[in-house]
Amino acid sequence: MSGSNKRMLELFYDVVSPYSWLGFEVMCRYSSAWNMNVRLRPSFLAGIMKESGNQPPHQVSKKVIYMLNDLHRLAKYFQVPIKEPKNLFEAVIKKGSLPAMRFVTAVDMEQPDFVELVSREFWMRIWSTDEDITLPDSILSVAQKAGLPSTEAQRLLGLTKAAEGKDRLKRTTEEALKYGSFGLPNIVAHVDGKPHMFFGSDRFMLLADLLGEKWMGPVLPGQKSLL
Amino acid sequence: MSGSNKRMLELFYDVVSPYSWLGFEVMCRYSSAWNMNVRLRPSFLAGIMKESGNQPPHQVSKKVIYMLNDLHRLAKYFQVPIKEPKNLFEAVIKKGSLPAMRFVTAVDMEQPDFVELVSREFWMRIWSTDEDITLPDSILSVAQKAGLPSTEAQRLLGLTKAAEGKDRLKRTTEEALKYGSFGLPNIVAHVDGKPHMFFGSDRFMLLADLLGEKWMGPVLPGQKSLL
Repeated sequence: MSGSNKRMLELFYDVVSPYSWLGFEVMCRYSSAWNMNVRLRPSFLAGIMKESGNQPPHQVSKKVIYMLNDLHRLAKYFQVPIKEPKNLFEAVIKKGSLPAMRFVTAVDMEQPDFVELVSREFWMRIWSTDEDITLPDSILSVAQKAGLPSTEAQRLLGLTKAAEGKDRLKRTTEEALKYGSFGLPNIVAHVDGKPHMFFGSDRFMLLADLLGEKWMGPVLPGQKSLL
Repeated sequence: MSGSNKRMLELFYDVVSPYSWLGFEVMCRYSSAWNMNVRLRPSFLAGIMKESGNQPPHQVSKKVIYMLNDLHRLAKYFQVPIKEPKNLFEAVIKKGSLPAMRFVTAVDMEQPDFVELVSREFWMRIWSTDEDITLPDSILSVAQKAGLPSTEAQRLLGLTKAAEGKDRLKRTTEEALKYGSFGLPNIVAHVDGKPHMFFGSDRFMLLADLLGEKWMGPVLPGQKSLL
């Protein structure tokens, strides 16, 4: 909050992306160890893929098979309980994350202290317990688990339908694109007056170098696992 | 060579791919530390992209810009002298690596002890000193630097035009596809009677876990940098 000597970093993410979850947990775990002010930037992955002309991974069947295997290995290594939804195409591609990310955006606007908890609960549903994240009831259940009072959750859900909420998600997505995004997550570290963008969840050793810090693996000593 | 207690790993690569170079150097550096028999498998990346339906990265301009930045950072971290060719599209996409990979394949068939040196010299040209790797003179220069006698180099160059040499590169590429490849490099570790495939040059900590070894970063203590 104070930010006096803290480095400012931004994390652009979408809860539809399991690699974003890994990046998110690492940034949360390291924020005090590396003295960072991590600004969570809820974004819309489908918009980034479309605007950058990048091909969604599900169009290459070998890539999908590999990614599921990769995620299985990474879940253990990162200690994050990723488990793919039974009907992957339905949950991830067809339903997508627009209502969820609009809600995270409304939380970011009105209740910023809850963004971390709400985001994690969305990931728990789509990428761990295989539950819907698009229906109003699903979203209200996420809000409740994150500790938001029910009347406030209802109000924020209303905001997701207002132009202001929709515009904010669009603008954040455009900001990611301006930093050079073609996929999520993106970490943008502001060091020496310049933004340094990292794509994915496998460049923490390079981020550590940039910050003059030490990369000690995805779970810091003494931290508890999510598994 | 003896392979008595050595784990068998394969590295599928193409010298057109700078990420392959990183994976190649790490596998060479770790082969004795991790008691591995690393089988070098020269492959043809363009064939893998086509067969798997994967989109070449140069079709997404933001991805190209990011990858060059990423490679610049990784070169320092891996201590490998990667420098992009001035005319990237001409060198990497238009010219490509077919004559080079056919030559590496011929070396693999007839002079397997030289595959490592010859591959590295090709990378030095295309991804460091910005020199051609497609003309016969370029290939002979690579062979000479790698220490192959000139008459033998000429003979191997002849082999690249024979059906046997062409078929062998095709078959190796097909083997990579059978392991699930959609891009290079691929490391295939044969552990507990099963192949475990890793894509890219950023999963060494997962490979270490699988082998019961320790990942100590891209350069082992006491090893010399290539920079």
